[in-house]
Amino acid sequence: MVKFKNIGYKMHDWTKYLFPICRSLTGSGVRETLHYIQNLIPELKIFSVPSGTQAFDWVVPDEWTIRDAYIDDSAGNRLVDFKQNNLHIVSYSNPIDLWLTLEELKPHLHSLPDQPNAIPYVTSYYSKYWGFCLTHNQLKSLAPGQYHVVIDTDLKPGVLNYGELILPGELDQEILLSTYICHPSMANNELSGPVVTTALTQWLGMLEKRKYTYRIVYLPETIGSIVYLSKHLEYLKQQVIAGFNITCIGDDRCYSFLPSRNGKTLSDYVALHVLKHTDHDFIRYTWLDRGSDERQYCAPNVDLPVASIMRSKYGEYPEYHTSLDDLELVTQSGLQGGFDVLRKAIDIIEKNVYLQTTVLGEPQLGNRGLYPTLSTKESGKEVRTMMNMLSYCDGNKSLLEIAELIDEPFWELTLIADQLIENDLLQKLEKKRE
Amino acid sequence: MVKFKNIGYKMHDWTKYLFPICRSLTGSGVRETLHYIQNLIPELKIFSVPSGTQAFDWVVPDEWTIRDAYIDDSAGNRLVDFKQNNLHIVSYSNPIDLWLTLEELKPHLHSLPDQPNAIPYVTSYYSKYWGFCLTHNQLKSLAPGQYHVVIDTDLKPGVLNYGELILPGELDQEILLSTYICHPSMANNELSGPVVTTALTQWLGMLEKRKYTYRIVYLPETIGSIVYLSKHLEYLKQQVIAGFNITCIGDDRCYSFLPSRNGKTLSDYVALHVLKHTDHDFIRYTWLDRGSDERQYCAPNVDLPVASIMRSKYGEYPEYHTSLDDLELVTQSGLQGGFDVLRKAIDIIEKNVYLQTTVLGEPQLGNRGLYPTLSTKESGKEVRTMMNMLSYCDGNKSLLEIAELIDEPFWELTLIADQLIENDLLQKLEKKRE
Amino acid sequence: MVKFKNIGYKMHDWTKYLFPICRSLTGSGVRETLHYIQNLIPELKIFSVPSGTQAFDWVVPDEWTIRDAYIDDSAGNRLVDFKQNNLHIVSYSNPIDLWLTLEELKPHLHSLPDQPNAIPYVTSYYSKYWGFCLTHNQLKSLAPGQYHVVIDTDLKPGVLNYGELILPGELDQEILLSTYICHPSMANNELSGPVVTTALTQWLGMLEKRKYTYRIVYLPETIGSIVYLSKHLEYLKQQVIAGFNITCIGDDRCYSFLPSRNGKTLSDYVALHVLKHTDHDFIRYTWLDRGSDERQYCAPNVDLPVASIMRSKYGEYPEYHTSLDDLELVTQSGLQGGFDVLRKAIDIIEKNVYLQTTVLGEPQLGNRGLYPTLSTKESGKEVRTMMNMLSYCDGNKSLLEIAELIDEPFWELTLIADQLIENDLLQKLEKKRE
Repeated sequence: MVKFKNIGYKMHDWTKYLFPICRSLTGSGVRETLHYIQNLIPELKIFSVPSGTQAFDWVVPDEWTIRDAYIDDSAGNRLVDFKQNNLHIVSYSNPIDLWLTLEELKPHLHSLPDQPNAIPYVTSYYSKYWGFCLTHNQLKSLAPGQYHVVIDTDLKPGVLNYGELILPGELDQEILLSTYICHPSMANNELSGPVVTTALTQWLGMLEKRKYTYRIVYLPETIGSIVYLSKHLEYLKQQVIAGFNITCIGDDRCYSFLPSRNGKTLSDYVALHVLKHTDHDFIRYTWLDRGSDERQYCAPNVDLPVASIMRSKYGEYPEYHTSLDDLELVTQSGLQGGFDVLRKAIDIIEKNVYLQTTVLGEPQLGNRGLYPTLSTKESGKEVRTMMNMLSYCDGNKSLLEIAELIDEPFWELTLIADQLIENDLLQKLEKKRE
Repeated sequence: MVKFKNIGYKMHDWTKYLFPICRSLTGSGVRETLHYIQNLIPELKIFSVPSGTQAFDWVVPDEWTIRDAYIDDSAGNRLVDFKQNNLHIVSYSNPIDLWLTLEELKPHLHSLPDQPNAIPYVTSYYSKYWGFCLTHNQLKSLAPGQYHVVIDTDLKPGVLNYGELILPGELDQEILLSTYICHPSMANNELSGPVVTTALTQWLGMLEKRKYTYRIVYLPETIGSIVYLSKHLEYLKQQVIAGFNITCIGDDRCYSFLPSRNGKTLSDYVALHVLKHTDHDFIRYTWLDRGSDERQYCAPNVDLPVASIMRSKYGEYPEYHTSLDDLELVTQSGLQGGFDVLRKAIDIIEKNVYLQTTVLGEPQLGNRGLYPTLSTKESGKEVRTMMNMLSYCDGNKSLLEIAELIDEPFWELTLIADQLIENDLLQKLEKKRE
Repeated sequence: MVKFKNIGYKMHDWTKYLFPICRSLTGSGVRETLHYIQNLIPELKIFSVPSGTQAFDWVVPDEWTIRDAYIDDSAGNRLVDFKQNNLHIVSYSNPIDLWLTLEELKPHLHSLPDQPNAIPYVTSYYSKYWGFCLTHNQLKSLAPGQYHVVIDTDLKPGVLNYGELILPGELDQEILLSTYICHPSMANNELSGPVVTTALTQWLGMLEKRKYTYRIVYLPETIGSIVYLSKHLEYLKQQVIAGFNITCIGDDRCYSFLPSRNGKTLSDYVALHVLKHTDHDFIRYTWLDRGSDERQYCAPNVDLPVASIMRSKYGEYPEYHTSLDDLELVTQSGLQGGFDVLRKAIDIIEKNVYLQTTVLGEPQLGNRGLYPTLSTKESGKEVRTMMNMLSYCDGNKSLLEIAELIDEPFWELTLIADQLIENDLLQKLEKKRE
């Protein structure tokens, strides 16, 4: 795995580049983001779905374009400026150009009294509205008087965009990686998602062989996954054996897990295994804590096996949905940790096999030189692990199940398994022994 | 459910009326009790089974009639008088008329040294005996001397009586409600049982429609349920899907639960759900704590799904089987609480369905006006509950199972389900989706 | 069971006799041990397998013979003498006759600094070596100088021996009892094993009838069980329904349990039941703590149902594999306790049946005189236990399962079951009722 060690080392730089772009459900910010990612993974295909398209219970909304938005005081001082921070504008705001008193303006101003230095993130996708967001400190500083309020936006028929990349493997069975690209300048939720997904895709593309086919999608949250499912549901239900919704994966604090609705899919077992052996104190959420695209992927009778491996989960960290979710909160090491756990999870799915001993009873390890091979300073522990593993290789348990039974990381067992296979003590089975 | 709110408001009055009647396994007290209940629910049918009838391993005993029983001192003072309290006589006592010394009398006197103000309840159904019960304080006050002891009873072939009422529903499948009527003047064990059962029967009779058929029986404990099972077992095994043994359901202290032998019947799940959402500290007994007619209904190869929802359980409260189990221990609010939990349990069985979403992915609630409809002060919580419920409506889980998964009371989910069905977002399934 | 009460009363004497014999994987010590056991159970057959025989992944080693071994100082004082304690020699040591300086000798001397009064037990079966073991105190006392080191051994083609005894029962299905005979002078590990096994065999031989056939084997650990399995595996897989590896069963401290690999075999359930009702604080090890012949019997695709009931487990007590594991550590009462739990475990397997009530509903116990029969000082408890047992006799649960459900020892329930069968209230079923 040495050759992959530098994969993803530019993730924080990518985040920095993408950070200022004003993304929303639709519009040029989404396309700009997808084109940047296309530079990193050229096989990415970008799709457009016309406004008004029906998708299950939903309709693709009109496309929103924003050119400018600001509040000037009567002296012409620019107090709030979309060009300084795109969180200042309520997403999907209608166009206006008005002079208002402070009292008239206030119902359209959003701030957070408990976080007076944070600009909140507010959207109004499905009801007509306009509004600005600002820090509570700035709100308090506004003097009575007249304000010139300008929002230069359009909301009219256009398209919804998403990106898709299929990396073929030996099998048609698929692993689904899904991330979203509809939030403006926030780093953990959401840029960590597409950035880590992009690094994973580069890694997957460099693998000499892939057992499974990978379907990687970048789409706006909720409406995007609904549109995508409405186009591909039957095929996905047949082919997807595991999947991850990739979000909130870039800070340095905890690791956390949110299950699929079913809770007992391959994705769930793999995620729990990786996290347990990465961070003993990882946080385990339940389906009732859900809040991202697993709501669609795991909806009744959709039922794709999609779980979430995260660092600080949406809704659970103080900077969530504010301007404080920034390029300092998300770090290169945070992104790298997120990349590593997802890479390990995928690696387990790729390498999970049923193993069977070739000899009955315990093998003679000494004769086969297996003691010395393993004889490092921790050799006693390693021989014990090898014997424990072997004792479960009856062809009825997957290597992941064995790793759970003997409470050792899967990635250590694969190394031992490879040695034992080379020594003809183990054989791989295509599937579970009857 | 507003129209039912006054059901049962006379339960304590009924208890007061029935309290002085001297019930036993057989005899006029049982018939008098059944006739009083027949006034409240005229459809009740009263059955008579002749003494000597074989029922499984048992034989219906002779009928016991008591006219009088007392102990006078040599001066003719009436010290112990059955007419003052029918617990003074050991049930099924033989007739006698004797002058005895205190020493000769004492082996026939029963008291409770640890509860010196309580008259104990003693029976001798299956071996020939006579005896009196009195408070320990009174026993200690008896002076040496001659006592005139009179018991005017008969024990001769007659009948055993029980009451039965069938309330037909849309389906032939049945819910069994069983209670007993063989204890003299004691209120929690037993009058709360027949009284709450009578209020439940009135409520069931007033329902516009019933999905299930209800079989309500009032019978003497043990021999009564054995006789009843011996007549109807095959039909009951085919038709009964749930049932409750109704006893000890009238005091104001705790709620408690005793499972069926199987422990995993619909009755068990429903009872646990109701109790958990009624009284977080309800007491959970096991099958090994059994002691009433579930011993017959759940006997091996009888196996009816009968559980017990109680307040203070027989054998577990200090006043049990004494004169202290009286009209003060059992209150109108205690009876009402007992009625409510049983009514809720029945209501769940009536309303439990399999629900399936009509759309794939999450529905657009805004479009359908479902946010405003629910928009009370707790609307956030309610929308969350609605979405959690919807997320499990895959047609494979009953509403009761969903209520357990999201830890909300069934009766709140039915209200939400009704709204969603009206809005065509949910449909009811006759049975579990394959 | 009174007639068996003296079985095993000579176990400590047997241990004392066998203690000084120098056993190893092969050789005259093993044969001498088997012949002594053959005196106690004459039906024992002794088998010889030639060196070089292939058995699964192993080859039977050459036979090791030791005649003498000692270290003399230059003055001719005998400092270390195999004839004083056979632990002084590393098992399978090559022959030598050398004069060495203390420095040259030291790499071949083994002691335990933490247990300075103990001679350790060391083997070198599969690599050529010679060495002596001695107390650390003695090691420290050795002065610089010349030492005469003599080991008079042979290692050449011969045989590996084991003993086998088949006690036929009504059924061909078998219970396997396996113990090992390859350790020199140590008492808990290992002599308690063959000694308790021999007492169990005497007890089994005296039984009027046996439901199952018993296969009792005495063999060198690891290579012996591998050789044995390689000869009989297919038959054993068909016939063995339960089995125990009998080792470390003679001290007076704790009881302990090590499961089969499967963990849910009859042997496991029976062992856990006996231990729970014998010693509430028994130690429960896992498969990962294994270390004896269960490694072969439960190997992948061997999968015999073999568990271990022990007292102080190998590797878990301070005297393990040292000269301190002696005739004081192992006591007659320790061996008797070990014998008793294994006898009870076997007794449960012999007597476990499916029971079904002959009457529906509870039986009339009074009529049948079952109350008096049981009316001892604890009669209330006994009647309760009888009724609890009866309440589960539906023909679908084995008596062992019922004993677990009502948390009573199996051996008490069989007595009650016999009474109830005599009274025609229970019947035995050949197998589980559909």
